[in-house]
Amino acid sequence: MNNSFGSLFTISTWGESHGGGIGVVIDGCPPLLNLTQQDIQTELDRRKPGQSNLTTPRKEADEVEILSGLFEGKTTGTPLAMLVRNKNANPKAYDHLKSVYRPSHADFTYDSKYGIRNWEGGGRSSARETIGRVAAGAVAKKILKKAEKIEILAYVSQMHTLHAAIDPEKVTLKKIESNPVRCPDTKVAAAMATKIEQARKDGDSLGGIITCVAKNVPAGLGEPVFNKLKADLAKAMLSIPASMGFQIGSGYNSVTQTGSEHNDPFYMDGQTVRTKTNNSGGIQGGISNGETILFTVAFKPTGTIFKEQDTVTTKKKNTKLSAKGRHDPCVLPRAVPIVESMAALVLVDHYLQQRARSGLFS
Amino acid sequence: MNNSFGSLFTISTWGESHGGGIGVVIDGCPPLLNLTQQDIQTELDRRKPGQSNLTTPRKEADEVEILSGLFEGKTTGTPLAMLVRNKNANPKAYDHLKSVYRPSHADFTYDSKYGIRNWEGGGRSSARETIGRVAAGAVAKKILKKAEKIEILAYVSQMHTLHAAIDPEKVTLKKIESNPVRCPDTKVAAAMATKIEQARKDGDSLGGIITCVAKNVPAGLGEPVFNKLKADLAKAMLSIPASMGFQIGSGYNSVTQTGSEHNDPFYMDGQTVRTKTNNSGGIQGGISNGETILFTVAFKPTGTIFKEQDTVTTKKKNTKLSAKGRHDPCVLPRAVPIVESMAALVLVDHYLQQRARSGLFS
Amino acid sequence: MNNSFGSLFTISTWGESHGGGIGVVIDGCPPLLNLTQQDIQTELDRRKPGQSNLTTPRKEADEVEILSGLFEGKTTGTPLAMLVRNKNANPKAYDHLKSVYRPSHADFTYDSKYGIRNWEGGGRSSARETIGRVAAGAVAKKILKKAEKIEILAYVSQMHTLHAAIDPEKVTLKKIESNPVRCPDTKVAAAMATKIEQARKDGDSLGGIITCVAKNVPAGLGEPVFNKLKADLAKAMLSIPASMGFQIGSGYNSVTQTGSEHNDPFYMDGQTVRTKTNNSGGIQGGISNGETILFTVAFKPTGTIFKEQDTVTTKKKNTKLSAKGRHDPCVLPRAVPIVESMAALVLVDHYLQQRARSGLFS
Amino acid sequence: MNNSFGSLFTISTWGESHGGGIGVVIDGCPPLLNLTQQDIQTELDRRKPGQSNLTTPRKEADEVEILSGLFEGKTTGTPLAMLVRNKNANPKAYDHLKSVYRPSHADFTYDSKYGIRNWEGGGRSSARETIGRVAAGAVAKKILKKAEKIEILAYVSQMHTLHAAIDPEKVTLKKIESNPVRCPDTKVAAAMATKIEQARKDGDSLGGIITCVAKNVPAGLGEPVFNKLKADLAKAMLSIPASMGFQIGSGYNSVTQTGSEHNDPFYMDGQTVRTKTNNSGGIQGGISNGETILFTVAFKPTGTIFKEQDTVTTKKKNTKLSAKGRHDPCVLPRAVPIVESMAALVLVDHYLQQRARSGLFS
Repeated sequence: MNNSFGSLFTISTWGESHGGGIGVVIDGCPPLLNLTQQDIQTELDRRKPGQSNLTTPRKEADEVEILSGLFEGKTTGTPLAMLVRNKNANPKAYDHLKSVYRPSHADFTYDSKYGIRNWEGGGRSSARETIGRVAAGAVAKKILKKAEKIEILAYVSQMHTLHAAIDPEKVTLKKIESNPVRCPDTKVAAAMATKIEQARKDGDSLGGIITCVAKNVPAGLGEPVFNKLKADLAKAMLSIPASMGFQIGSGYNSVTQTGSEHNDPFYMDGQTVRTKTNNSGGIQGGISNGETILFTVAFKPTGTIFKEQDTVTTKKKNTKLSAKGRHDPCVLPRAVPIVESMAALVLVDHYLQQRARSGLFS
Repeated sequence: MNNSFGSLFTISTWGESHGGGIGVVIDGCPPLLNLTQQDIQTELDRRKPGQSNLTTPRKEADEVEILSGLFEGKTTGTPLAMLVRNKNANPKAYDHLKSVYRPSHADFTYDSKYGIRNWEGGGRSSARETIGRVAAGAVAKKILKKAEKIEILAYVSQMHTLHAAIDPEKVTLKKIESNPVRCPDTKVAAAMATKIEQARKDGDSLGGIITCVAKNVPAGLGEPVFNKLKADLAKAMLSIPASMGFQIGSGYNSVTQTGSEHNDPFYMDGQTVRTKTNNSGGIQGGISNGETILFTVAFKPTGTIFKEQDTVTTKKKNTKLSAKGRHDPCVLPRAVPIVESMAALVLVDHYLQQRARSGLFS
Repeated sequence: MNNSFGSLFTISTWGESHGGGIGVVIDGCPPLLNLTQQDIQTELDRRKPGQSNLTTPRKEADEVEILSGLFEGKTTGTPLAMLVRNKNANPKAYDHLKSVYRPSHADFTYDSKYGIRNWEGGGRSSARETIGRVAAGAVAKKILKKAEKIEILAYVSQMHTLHAAIDPEKVTLKKIESNPVRCPDTKVAAAMATKIEQARKDGDSLGGIITCVAKNVPAGLGEPVFNKLKADLAKAMLSIPASMGFQIGSGYNSVTQTGSEHNDPFYMDGQTVRTKTNNSGGIQGGISNGETILFTVAFKPTGTIFKEQDTVTTKKKNTKLSAKGRHDPCVLPRAVPIVESMAALVLVDHYLQQRARSGLFS
Repeated sequence: MNNSFGSLFTISTWGESHGGGIGVVIDGCPPLLNLTQQDIQTELDRRKPGQSNLTTPRKEADEVEILSGLFEGKTTGTPLAMLVRNKNANPKAYDHLKSVYRPSHADFTYDSKYGIRNWEGGGRSSARETIGRVAAGAVAKKILKKAEKIEILAYVSQMHTLHAAIDPEKVTLKKIESNPVRCPDTKVAAAMATKIEQARKDGDSLGGIITCVAKNVPAGLGEPVFNKLKADLAKAMLSIPASMGFQIGSGYNSVTQTGSEHNDPFYMDGQTVRTKTNNSGGIQGGISNGETILFTVAFKPTGTIFKEQDTVTTKKKNTKLSAKGRHDPCVLPRAVPIVESMAALVLVDHYLQQRARSGLFS
């Protein structure tokens, strides 16, 4: 089940950049959730290409069809299948990649693994695969919100050397969506936009950091020992194309803290156990503690650049490559809903696990 | 299967710090591997407490018994069960923790999740659980070495503010094991040892970074899209107690690179496709590319400190806690074999997956 | 993953009788298999309604579209998604079932489980769900045939009281497909056809037995202890709608044999270990022994009959029901490819498992 | 995970007939269940050898040790590991089997699969493996009883040609345990005992049928489409050594019923939907309907007989074999708690699945 994620709320994605389309099957969605095509489309529209002049000019409506699992506007508990057709596919644009491996792409490794690759638009390794994740994430987010008022928000907190000054506890969806970069620090967002434009002109690309928070997560989610909440979040994030690292709470900064600096002291807030600081990022012993869950994901600069690069051909000869086509110089603005979706998928799965076994005896 | 890890080479761990012992069952070990108790014990001895004056003075022989799955010195393909009895358990040492939650430990979250916790020595959240991982990792490492000459080496590359100057491509087991810190830069290792001693005197604790390399990994391991090699490594590492972050290849440093700086150009090295740089950490598109796999893991300072801390009781009252007992001021030296083991478990699983399906048709 | 089957060659089905369609995703198909739409369609045509006057007059082309996982006529190792649109849906035909539970159907139990059911055509419990199984089974059969010349054949061996006289070792596809009943004993097949016609006139329905053989299965497939080959076959068969029982080899007849009558003596056939009898049905200790795998599946008479029956309404009142619409008086002829497909899915999965771990050491 | 069973309440068994012992790990047991060693031991005593003169004279106390997962008499939600040491092992008794394959045993198939087998006492294929199942089944039964008053009862309903006359709805544990055959029809039980004694004298063996009922199972358990309750029960039963078939409800007898004879009419019993007959065996559409779950399992005669048999050596020569040692001429009395245990494992897993997702929305 290498194309599936989750155990009780499981998604299986399929599809390539070019071909019949992209899809996802959700198995294990609780019944009786009100759900519309628009619930899904809204999130896909945050991911789709051509939203702004910062992203790839490739235009795709990415319109989703819900094929099963809904009856009279409610989920039935049976699999929800969703399909997005590929409309603006242009295989010819990839002819020049048929016999060459793009550096830091999946071309060479897919060939090594499978002995074959669909070289049109990256095939399965295309970021279009994440359409299925975002469609499923929309359902997961709705469940979490309706059941527990859990809110998941991601945003661009760093692009190349530009840092946003944001208190993650206070970020809002409105602020995030207020600009095409999806950086809630509007001043820095403007600088980021300029930087992206410059990278496009240079034929180069940029990376950055996405920060994600999940608020109102009840204490008790996460399954020791291997399916710790932080472990499943780390896997979810590192499964996203171009991701290079994950940090929970104070992350790598914990390294230069002593225990007395790092530990989060408990205190009573009325009848609620709270921590004064949140270096743990809302997770202790792999289980949520009721504080805001906080993590970051690093993304490398987009692999496709228009500068000439050294590489090799599929016939094993050295060569030079200058990419053509339509590409994002920076994937981060469109990766925001992907990060949120993967976080939602992890949380909804752990939420259902906890429902299965808790409160049975006392 | 929250206490299991892996799909084709699966380990299931069980046991608490205090109680009958700690164990692991390996399901899916290939038959006909030569294996001895000593193969396992050697690795457990690298993890056990009381190895040096840097670790907890709690002494445990941690002697392993192989209960099943071996016949006349060879694995039979049936489950390998291994057991380590708890010998030096001292539940009374934990009496003062019965009714209080230790900050940045799992006490509060286990209670929130299960409505009960074994407060003796941390129960299931004790790092003693990792005995099972290291025992299984010893088997995984032997398989990888015998089948493909794959070598996995981890070492302490940073402790608090002290950085080791090491080329990860050149590190050797001998160098790593040359000092009790397991830092192959012997000069910095000495400074780290001094720092640990100081932390112990201060009643405080230290964190750090472990770097891990896997050499001779053939191209083609890793299963898109969710079980990418980097994703499974990230999960494995974030499932280790006290881990706070994971980076593959250039990790968070990728963020301030442009694409033209980050991309790893391909070139032909005889008949082998190689990359000139290794910012990808040996993984592209989630699949190994034949280069050395390289990642780091951040560990927070040990949760248990002897300085007084604010916290709350299980009856939900504010209180103060001063820990007692025997604890490591820094877990990193003993975490080195755990990191190696988890990496080996991920790699052996992907290796078997690749065997299952490749080369069937052509 | 309740709508998924298999571990290394995994299928996930979705869809309802009425709605967007029926589909399946295959995850784990080995790369480089030659595959065409026709390979799939041929098997679907054996399952589709309206093939003969013995089955439901509901006409459906059940044309399949392969949406992903193929490139230039070969599988790529990525998910194969297949879609069959529902064309001849007629929700109005089910209006009279909206508020009543059909006896021995899934109406009441789906409502009990989910609190909602799609009452159009049985929703998810419709036998149309098996389209996905047959489409995936076509791929599994092709892999087994190409890799090991394994041939899987099922046929109707009993209908109501009519028994076919067939040596399962000698049955051929041609014989099976020589008549619409799919009973290779042509004389009995004719009597069965007459009996089905009579049942239709009576507004009643018939059950029967399907026998299945798998030839050329190498010794060594099957995974003790829980995933024994017979256990996975049993699960596969009891997951088919209307199935009521499963027998491997001499099955329930073993009960009245003594050990000396039942045991299959080994003998050497050249260099091959063979058994003189095959009461074991080709499986010993849960593992194939190289003999023909042989099992049967019992099917109850179709639930939908046109005679008046006692039942209750969804409002919990006693009532009477006389079904309307288009239904098969006997599902067996169309269940033959379903049984074959499920057997193929089990075998291909075990075949890949065996490839993963065998021959690594010696 | 071939030695694991279940998804939310998962057991993993390990161990061989001869070696360190036999064990099981339960992962996913709900917390706060009161549990004692005696709860487990009582069930193991029903399975152990040497209970009566009908079973093997090999004496084993089969005393269980609970190694983890319990604290102050309650389950903690962490893995329950249980161990039974092999005490009365006698490897020398198997010397004559070192180089010969016993007919209708797993000797040849294990060698074919793994290239190695532990020939002492059957190794992993020994029925001693079921100790782990029964230990885990004891926990599952306790959960089901405490949570929903579900009672699971199995009994010997047929041995060779002797049929018990029992109404499965009225069978009680007391009646079953009233004689060593575990057949609640005491008159037939006596005849069965005589028959077993005769088989022992003849050096031969007997098979039979075990019937199992599960009472008070709420409607709604079972997960379409592949994890139907009947499918998981079938797999569970066919995973038991020596099992040859499974029937749910009217099973193979359904074949000669017409739909109007087979269908179970619904009626209102106060506010409860009931069926007048129970040909469905309590399961419709793969989901429990609130009626008693009813199924049977066929067991072949024990493979080991003392009459001379034709067979082959491991060097591939024809030979003769006359078994020696201590064996049951009929496994059925001891298989009764195994059948109950496997049924309980299936039901508790589906029960937790249903808790996970139901009642979240409405």
